[in-house]
Amino acid sequence: MVSKKNYDVTEWNVGNPYEDIGKVINSIIADIKTRQTNVDVNDGGKPGAVIYIPPGDYHLTTQVVIDISYLKIMGSGHGFTSSSIRFNTPPGELAHWHEIWPGGSRVLVDILPQSGSDESTGAAFYVKREGEPRISSVEFADFCIDGLHFVDDASGHHDPENSYTNGKTGIYVANAQDSFRITGMGFVYLEHGITTYQSDALSIHDNFIAECGNCIELRGSGQASKITDNLIGAGYKGYSIYAQNFGGLLVTANNVFPRGKSSIHFSGVVRSSVTSNRFHSFYSGMLVLEDNSSEVLVSANHFLRDHEPWLPMQGYDSGADDLYGLLYISGNNNSVISNHISETIETQYIRPSGAKPVIIRIVSGTGNFISGNHMVATTEASKTQTSATNSCFDAQVGALLTVDALQPLEVTAVQIETESRQNTILDSGSDAQVVMDRTVNAFRATPTPGL
Amino acid sequence: MVSKKNYDVTEWNVGNPYEDIGKVINSIIADIKTRQTNVDVNDGGKPGAVIYIPPGDYHLTTQVVIDISYLKIMGSGHGFTSSSIRFNTPPGELAHWHEIWPGGSRVLVDILPQSGSDESTGAAFYVKREGEPRISSVEFADFCIDGLHFVDDASGHHDPENSYTNGKTGIYVANAQDSFRITGMGFVYLEHGITTYQSDALSIHDNFIAECGNCIELRGSGQASKITDNLIGAGYKGYSIYAQNFGGLLVTANNVFPRGKSSIHFSGVVRSSVTSNRFHSFYSGMLVLEDNSSEVLVSANHFLRDHEPWLPMQGYDSGADDLYGLLYISGNNNSVISNHISETIETQYIRPSGAKPVIIRIVSGTGNFISGNHMVATTEASKTQTSATNSCFDAQVGALLTVDALQPLEVTAVQIETESRQNTILDSGSDAQVVMDRTVNAFRATPTPGL
Amino acid sequence: MVSKKNYDVTEWNVGNPYEDIGKVINSIIADIKTRQTNVDVNDGGKPGAVIYIPPGDYHLTTQVVIDISYLKIMGSGHGFTSSSIRFNTPPGELAHWHEIWPGGSRVLVDILPQSGSDESTGAAFYVKREGEPRISSVEFADFCIDGLHFVDDASGHHDPENSYTNGKTGIYVANAQDSFRITGMGFVYLEHGITTYQSDALSIHDNFIAECGNCIELRGSGQASKITDNLIGAGYKGYSIYAQNFGGLLVTANNVFPRGKSSIHFSGVVRSSVTSNRFHSFYSGMLVLEDNSSEVLVSANHFLRDHEPWLPMQGYDSGADDLYGLLYISGNNNSVISNHISETIETQYIRPSGAKPVIIRIVSGTGNFISGNHMVATTEASKTQTSATNSCFDAQVGALLTVDALQPLEVTAVQIETESRQNTILDSGSDAQVVMDRTVNAFRATPTPGL
Repeated sequence: MVSKKNYDVTEWNVGNPYEDIGKVINSIIADIKTRQTNVDVNDGGKPGAVIYIPPGDYHLTTQVVIDISYLKIMGSGHGFTSSSIRFNTPPGELAHWHEIWPGGSRVLVDILPQSGSDESTGAAFYVKREGEPRISSVEFADFCIDGLHFVDDASGHHDPENSYTNGKTGIYVANAQDSFRITGMGFVYLEHGITTYQSDALSIHDNFIAECGNCIELRGSGQASKITDNLIGAGYKGYSIYAQNFGGLLVTANNVFPRGKSSIHFSGVVRSSVTSNRFHSFYSGMLVLEDNSSEVLVSANHFLRDHEPWLPMQGYDSGADDLYGLLYISGNNNSVISNHISETIETQYIRPSGAKPVIIRIVSGTGNFISGNHMVATTEASKTQTSATNSCFDAQVGALLTVDALQPLEVTAVQIETESRQNTILDSGSDAQVVMDRTVNAFRATPTPGL
Repeated sequence: MVSKKNYDVTEWNVGNPYEDIGKVINSIIADIKTRQTNVDVNDGGKPGAVIYIPPGDYHLTTQVVIDISYLKIMGSGHGFTSSSIRFNTPPGELAHWHEIWPGGSRVLVDILPQSGSDESTGAAFYVKREGEPRISSVEFADFCIDGLHFVDDASGHHDPENSYTNGKTGIYVANAQDSFRITGMGFVYLEHGITTYQSDALSIHDNFIAECGNCIELRGSGQASKITDNLIGAGYKGYSIYAQNFGGLLVTANNVFPRGKSSIHFSGVVRSSVTSNRFHSFYSGMLVLEDNSSEVLVSANHFLRDHEPWLPMQGYDSGADDLYGLLYISGNNNSVISNHISETIETQYIRPSGAKPVIIRIVSGTGNFISGNHMVATTEASKTQTSATNSCFDAQVGALLTVDALQPLEVTAVQIETESRQNTILDSGSDAQVVMDRTVNAFRATPTPGL
Repeated sequence: MVSKKNYDVTEWNVGNPYEDIGKVINSIIADIKTRQTNVDVNDGGKPGAVIYIPPGDYHLTTQVVIDISYLKIMGSGHGFTSSSIRFNTPPGELAHWHEIWPGGSRVLVDILPQSGSDESTGAAFYVKREGEPRISSVEFADFCIDGLHFVDDASGHHDPENSYTNGKTGIYVANAQDSFRITGMGFVYLEHGITTYQSDALSIHDNFIAECGNCIELRGSGQASKITDNLIGAGYKGYSIYAQNFGGLLVTANNVFPRGKSSIHFSGVVRSSVTSNRFHSFYSGMLVLEDNSSEVLVSANHFLRDHEPWLPMQGYDSGADDLYGLLYISGNNNSVISNHISETIETQYIRPSGAKPVIIRIVSGTGNFISGNHMVATTEASKTQTSATNSCFDAQVGALLTVDALQPLEVTAVQIETESRQNTILDSGSDAQVVMDRTVNAFRATPTPGL
């Protein structure tokens, strides 16, 4: 009895994992607890267990509730495929498809948030434990959480599978936790992929989190965590990576693709890093530092904003206009150094019409340091690639690779609002491209080549 | 029957995995397909399966053909050891060796490309599926693909095990695919490690890919992928990392060691990132951006070029001379920012003799931005460490650590050919070290210390 | 017999893994050797094996000795929890705790170094093999090594569980090795987490190594390795990451938290990279490049130094005063580019009293290049957050998030000692903040905003 530490959901004696894996896992967790009796004898603790989900389709109708440390839930496949492409394919074509659903070790989230209640009720995996110590070292690895469908969001679009709304969350950590790991997972068609509160030493590494309303949300407060080496892309309404009141967050080596209202949205985040990422967006506000976010380093990133090239999604956007700032900064002593920032857009799509898009906009705060950034702004003579195809891949790659016929686009490289002072702008735009009060901010223009 | 999702190649009832693991895996794949009958009932899909390769030696004489999504093939050990050192050790010494072959979960590629046919016939793992959707989420993890031997390549060297030629490929993905993962693998003594076409959201992460003719080749076109955190090193003929017509590729956190004709070779690659890597090479052309590669960010990388220190390989090189450019750029609006670039070489090895080596060479295109790079060029008074040893490790570490007796070497830090205009060069070389038309390019010299 | 390659420590027929897992693993290794008889027949080698440690508590009283290549030892959980918080919690409160020990697949290191002998005798896992070739591809994955307790260190503190001293090492690799992997592990309460000598192509990736005296020590010499994507934090006496006579080391994407006498300490390390990390420390000397460390690139990192906010540890520090340099450099041609460096401290804690803290201090050597760094130095009007709580998390997050009431602190941004010459300092401090001989070093001040 005591030595049982490996559980397979397909071999457990309570419930049917194909019908409700939630009931099965909760029963296994109860079993683990009954075995954790060996406390503090010969330094012996409560080592937890591993629950294995083989490749397969597992409906989840009962929320999994985790309140023990050292639990690892793992599968054998992240199983991502694009549900967005599938739901924007005419049904008649689907009949010829090899498969139409995500796969791997796949949890199908049938749970719905209870009406009028907290969003956590719509979470597939819910972690909560009161008291001391904080729950530690829960690990999620190598399986797929699939929200299955989005629903009509009353926006007037009446296009439910493109709404990025369904009240479902993949993993929800409700209170303080330490040293959690989320690795090798797939998340798809959830309104929220991962939501955590009061995170410490959290690692979100090498996952595939896409076609979710929001991908990663670190809420409340937290410290000393990393979001690294993931493929991420939220819907047009939400955040790819959001953090709140966080210190010491490291966001690096991620490839964050569209759509995402923001690729990075920091609220009150301080002394944190956004480095060596690749960001691609279809909207302004790719990176937002607000609510006094301070001492954030943004370096060695590639930012690209272009126009939505895929027909089915061209009716949607984030609502931010081109004067909002591709990078929007409200806070103190932030550093934006050595980034490549690219905007390529046909003038017909610029909002407000005729406006000169703003690349970096400092709205408030002091002491920000913007240095050695290369802005490239271009436009196309005529609309070519975006109307040609209904294929998401062809549209995106076609748009990405269109660099030959581009003309320069006039932009404001850096704009500092009058509420903000004492910033330093170096080698990040020519004299004509930078709008700021040069008497209260420091400026050195990028030298301009002769013609 | 339906619930079987875990296969062990040593427990399957068709074929002998030690004699031909290819036949075994193909038989397992056929079995998986017969079970995938549950399409679109209650949102249920075709979840795939996992095929496990325990530690052991498995010959592969039949090519594995993969045409189902969500298949994971995994082992328990990447098993790399240096076959190059072994094949350059006198046979008499080998008798005393503990072991002479790679190990782990090791696939021995006995397959050979069919004469006169496509190179894909020499692939151990061949992925191809026509129709929709693109094949998704195939995963390779934690095993070793060993090409065993190189063969005489008619170059006149008649040194077959150093030819980096054998027509073998580890993993070959022939057409469009989505969200593949290659993680924790070992690749050794293959002419091509990984070759893919039309990749989307591919992750090549934390692998050991070395002593292959070429390591990673992303061909055709593709987007939104990552090559991260690998140990990589191709042969003197080939590419460590090659990409073609790609947008949004993130290459970060890799340690790319010699030899490699190029560490990075991009053809028509746009809006991509090469950041926070460590590159070491023995030849010029460490990084090549050609065929109108544009808006590529190269930042926070360490580049080192020195001379081949190991006796057995000193007869080989890539053929590029020292005027070619350690970094060679042909394209527009690329950014080379905040790198450390080091060249250390005895003057006797410089080609053409007496030439002043070129560090960054911009051959064509406009709008490139080269800023804040530190070039360190040194030479040794006399040849010391390179002749002393037949040990690859001792030779390489000896050469690497030789920094005390170095004298400055005169180089051209940046050279812009006349076909290229409108580039901006800042803080990346003194006035005397930069060769360009200052009337059509912008320049700010790195300030020079007094003596 | 020959095909056995998967071992489970709980199913082996020698020893009791709960009482002494060392004896069990050594017996398994002996068994593996008896099966490795198939040398060089049909290219067949000695493929090794995998030893699995299920979740559970396993005492180790016999040192594991590894002398075969391709051995993988793996568990199902890194199992970290903070023993430091636990040991600084009043015993009466512990009675209400959910658990008090680390977990996962947990090895409890009961072994002690033999008195008067080499420190390697205190290692839980000891790797050593003489002869050729170097031992290759040993892998450690996904388990926990727990040193359990620290002991009185005769420092006069008489606070044994805060001494970071117990003579225990997690993994000790005594001689030359190739292509080892350490991934997904947890290390806690060891005097030394990982110690290796003569490493080549080592990968230390995605581990949790904290509350150890020292975390990672690469000794002797070595090359072409990577320390990536780890959560790391040593004790106040030791190194988070130490390397000696190393070439081509890549340290990237790590989140290194306090305490750590140094976050990075390089002795004679050359042509290596420290990029895209986040470092947090409570002392000067966060990064030390000494003993002629040369051509090291330090870029895109976030450095934060503040004062120890947690009551139980406020009696300890590293001993370095504020004139030592937050970054201390003794060597040639190093590059410090595009970093954010933050110091925030109340003036009462500055040592020597009244001193102006030094951020980057170049002690000796020539040719160092310091460019585009943003230093932010602040102080608080009054001590607020640090005295309020005994909770480590609340103290640290409270301190991290305290950015609103800060006043500027005068610091020396860069100080170059007279023994050092020919350095170049660009955009890394105002004229008043940089102390150097401007006749033998090059300088360009960061432009200062008007008031």
